[in-house]
Parts: sequence; structure tokens; C-alpha cells
Amino acid sequence: MTIYDNLIIGAGPVGLFQIFQSGILRLKTHTIDILPHIGGQCSALYPQKPIYDIPAFPKIMGGELIANLQAQIAPFNPEFTLKTRAESFIRGDDGVFTIHCNDALSFQTRTIILAAGAGAFGHNKPPINNIDEFEGKSVHYYITNKEHFRGRRVVIGGGGDSAVDWAIELSQIAQSVALVHRRAEFRATPESVEQLHQLVSLGKITLHIPQQPVGIIGQNGQMEQLILQDMDGAKQTIMADDFLPFYGLLNNMGPLKQWGLNLSPRGMILVNPASMMTNIEGIFAIGDCASYAGKLKLILQGFAEAAVAAQGVYNYIHGKIPHFEHSTSSPIHQGQ
Amino acid sequence: MTIYDNLIIGAGPVGLFQIFQSGILRLKTHTIDILPHIGGQCSALYPQKPIYDIPAFPKIMGGELIANLQAQIAPFNPEFTLKTRAESFIRGDDGVFTIHCNDALSFQTRTIILAAGAGAFGHNKPPINNIDEFEGKSVHYYITNKEHFRGRRVVIGGGGDSAVDWAIELSQIAQSVALVHRRAEFRATPESVEQLHQLVSLGKITLHIPQQPVGIIGQNGQMEQLILQDMDGAKQTIMADDFLPFYGLLNNMGPLKQWGLNLSPRGMILVNPASMMTNIEGIFAIGDCASYAGKLKLILQGFAEAAVAAQGVYNYIHGKIPHFEHSTSSPIHQGQ
Repeated sequence: MTIYDNLIIGAGPVGLFQIFQSGILRLKTHTIDILPHIGGQCSALYPQKPIYDIPAFPKIMGGELIANLQAQIAPFNPEFTLKTRAESFIRGDDGVFTIHCNDALSFQTRTIILAAGAGAFGHNKPPINNIDEFEGKSVHYYITNKEHFRGRRVVIGGGGDSAVDWAIELSQIAQSVALVHRRAEFRATPESVEQLHQLVSLGKITLHIPQQPVGIIGQNGQMEQLILQDMDGAKQTIMADDFLPFYGLLNNMGPLKQWGLNLSPRGMILVNPASMMTNIEGIFAIGDCASYAGKLKLILQGFAEAAVAAQGVYNYIHGKIPHFEHSTSSPIHQGQ
Repeated sequence: MTIYDNLIIGAGPVGLFQIFQSGILRLKTHTIDILPHIGGQCSALYPQKPIYDIPAFPKIMGGELIANLQAQIAPFNPEFTLKTRAESFIRGDDGVFTIHCNDALSFQTRTIILAAGAGAFGHNKPPINNIDEFEGKSVHYYITNKEHFRGRRVVIGGGGDSAVDWAIELSQIAQSVALVHRRAEFRATPESVEQLHQLVSLGKITLHIPQQPVGIIGQNGQMEQLILQDMDGAKQTIMADDFLPFYGLLNNMGPLKQWGLNLSPRGMILVNPASMMTNIEGIFAIGDCASYAGKLKLILQGFAEAAVAAQGVYNYIHGKIPHFEHSTSSPIHQGQ
């Protein structure tokens, strides 16, 4: 069986960029993901949502970001095993890990890099008893084709980046956009919040705050009205064709929780930010699943962490940093 | 006089992305640079050199990277003062900094973000007495138009990324490429070193190792031969039209050295990586001029540091982190 240098768990944008960073250090990688495709949430949840904070891209769609990363790693002939979940590991006396997956698959590797995002993700759901009758028809936890909403009456629930950014985005094409949030403050970038308030002033978006969605009226999967409740328990209904609950992802690390990794109070994997190594020697973590002082959950942070992890892995395997020649007392210096 | 939230010192790629990151947090910025243009080394030294490790760009030229960043920050109407060097600062009782520059200019700001790269950069020169006769004609410390080298006999000096990557790049268009290095090992990415050795096997590049350039023969600024010396002092000459000494940049932080900042043994500014703040409250540093455990001198690292610094500055000015709403015990969670 091949012994890889890195087994990368998670083929989202950060896992893909890890393939690049490991590749330029000539580390042999293999990547697994539980999804049937690469790209993680970018492919599954927002292929058509513009992202504005990827450096040197004024605007890029989630799907486009993944396609570009695929082109960037192509020279390294990356190997993927999809629809596969890492279950457990054992470690030989030679330090080599054997990772057991579902489907009786296993892999051998010198190091493991966890780029598992929020894990095998599910969605936090609002407290609406009959919501499952409408899911996939008029209740959508993510958007793969935003044209679906053209000319429709859309209600968005939540107060984070996804809720605010989609409210702004869909206000351009929907008949109406209502935003329901249980607080008066929004947890999105100040720029987006400012834009939201401008659109509210212009009548392009209506706000229902502080309110919570508590029921849906409709038939055959098509909602007609959404029932909202304020903090005193008073109810009102609004007409709606579609409801988009954006209440974040369930952090569902699954079997990884049993690996003995040190976790933060929020269940993220604690790493040394100088190498991205966890408390288990040879196991590294990057991207949204990793935490350290000053950690920001941004894709661009994950990209930088991939570069650090590649060096950390190289150093772990070879006992030296990749650039091992240093300036000397010669009049000719080598930069740095 | 306007009081800025951030005065950014350095308009290279990392300084430009700081404008974006500060902008989305609605921090008011102004950026100064000693060069007459924005883009730092990307514009001045390698506008036409492809960069391969910017995430989601399989290949991007230095100039193109800067143009993209300019487009990305345009919505924030960035203000620049070019050809200007920060000399000294004083700090009022209210904590506001006044920065004095050359040309009797001054700025007021709540925080300073140093994104000064290697400072006002100069080049390390090889030990060749008459080199100044040839500079700008047949000795080039950087490349702004690579077509100049088409069909010419090029000698490159050095063993770092610039030397190796330009040897590979120019081998496609030059008549011949010789690489002179005082050691047998190259301090570039393993991938580039492998490509170099392949091109050497194919006869596209010749190696002169371990050797040092010690003299130039020619007239009217046009070299004809380069004199090399081995470690025992024996000399040989090679025919050459152009010599490209890539021995790194002089770290020239200029007046910043007098600011009382804690520096690493290599003269880089030490920061707390959780906020990018230096030992002086309110002064931050990012990019190649900053150092901390695990620091990599990569543009993508500087991008991630800009995001951390924006949060650090926001927290310093407002006494809270930008996203101040948190999950509660409600069944509806806000992600993270």
C-alpha cells in the first residue's frame, strides 16, 4: 500500500490549496472527502454566491474559486477518494498512520492534515414543527441556482453573513425580500450591514426584528405564509413563496471527536499556529476546523495556514525546514 | 487635519489588501509609500514575472496582481500619498499619532500599520569593482521587460527563488542561460529546483557551481565576458550579453529603525500574531517586515495578516471585536 506524506481530510477550498502547498514541497498527498464532489461548502452550498474577500478577486463565485484551485493543483495530479469518511487511526511503531474509513477502505500516511471545515455539515433549523414538509420545495438551506428566486417573495431568516449577504444579493431579482432576525444587531461585516440598511431605506428589503419564524402555512410543499413571533410571544404572518433559514452549520465532526484531539470550548481543533500541528504528533489541522489565538474563520486565513502546515509537515517528516541554505559572512547574501 | 483610523505605510500587495480589510470594517485609511507608484516590488521589480502561489491563480504576473488588488479596493476610494517616507512619530495625550514625513508632510492617525516589506529597497551587489559601469545596460538587478533577453546570452547569479525562477523562465527565450552560485544547493522551492535540474539535463541551462562572479570585461556599458572564480581562487571567463545578479534585497528600514520597535535578529519587526500589534501600542506590522513564530515570507501570508490586523486595529480603537453578537441558548444559532 502506498504510504503518503499527507493524507488530507476535506476537499474544500483550503484542503485543495493544501494540495498545492504540499505539492511545491514535493510531498505526496491523497485527499478524501465525505461529499461526492470536491469543493466542500463552496460547491455544495454557494456555487453561485459571490465572495468578495479573496485577495486579488474583486468578486468570485464559490464555484469559480473551486475551478481555479483545481486548475492550480492540476500539475500535481492530485488523487481524491470521495464519498469517504475517516473513522479511526492506528499508528505503527515506525510512526506511519493507518486511517480506517467507512466502506472498509484504509490509507497509510506519515501525516494527517485535517481540513474538515465544519465537518460533515448539517444546518441548524428554526423551531418550526412542519418544516420538513417544505424543505427542498419552498424552504432552502442553501442556494445553488439563484435564478429560482427571480420575481418571488423571499423571506430570509438569520443575522449572520449568509443571511445579510443573500438578502442584499436577492433584493436585485426577487419581487420582495424580508429579513427576519431575533435581534436588532447583525453579525456581518460593517460594510454589508451598511448596505443592508441602505436597501431597507430604499424599500428594497423589509426587516422583521426582533422576530423568530415559528410556523409555515401552505400545501404540497409550497408555502403561502410564514408565521413570525416576537419576543413577547405575539404572532403575525407574512406572505412568502420561499423561506431561506440561514442559522449556520451544525458543527458535526463525527468520528474525529474520538481521536483524542484537544478541542476549544466551541469544538474546534486546537493547533500550534507556528506549524498547525495538533496535540497529536503528525496530525495537523487547518481552515475552519482549526483554532488558535487570533484565528479568523476566513478562506484566506485557511490558505495561509496551508502554507504553514506544508512547512510543518516537511519539517516533521524530514527534520528540517524546506529552505535550508542560509546567508553566510560572504559579501553575497541570499535575501531574507 | 483628518484623523485616520489607519495610516498604512507601504503600498505593496499586502498594504493594498490591508486597505480592503480595513475598508470592510469601515476603518478610515490613508496609505503612503516612498515609491512613485503603488504595488511595491511587484510593480518595481517583477511586473512581468509570473507568481504561482497566489491562491486560485494558477499563474499571475506581478503587475496583474496589483491591478486586481486596485480593482478590489476601488469601492473604498483609497487615498495615497506617494514619494513620501515616514520619518518619526509623536503621540498625543489622546493617543493620536502624528507622523512626520519628509517634505514637511504630516498625518494624524489612531493606528499605524507598517507594511513596509524590505523597506526602501536596495540590492545586494556581487564583489565586482567595475560593476557600476555596466548597471542598467548589461547588468540588471530586476526585470521589467523580459523581451529584452530574447536571443541573448544571459548569466544569472544567486541561488534563491529569484535566481532559480528567472533561470527557468528566461531559458524559454534566451539564446543561453548560465546560472552561477557559490554553493551546490539552491534555496528555492523543491519544485523549482527539480525543474531547474531537468532544464540542466536538457542542456537549456548551464550551471557554474560553486563559483562567484568577480569581474566583468566589456566596453561602453556592454559586457562581453564575465569572470568567475571557484572556491580555490581559480578563474574562468564565460561569454555573456547580460548579467542578472539576484543576491536579495538590502533590508533598509531607514528611519523606522529608530522608532523603538522590538526587532528580530534579522531586523524584522516582532508582532503578536493574534493581532499583528508590535511592542508599541497602536502600531501594527504585516507582510515581509513583520515576524513571529512560524512566519513565512509569502504574499499570501501577508494577505491573511492584513485580515488579522484589521480586527486588531478595530479592537484597539473600539475596544471590541467587530462581530459582537454571539450564539445564545436559543435553538437558533449564528454559525461559528
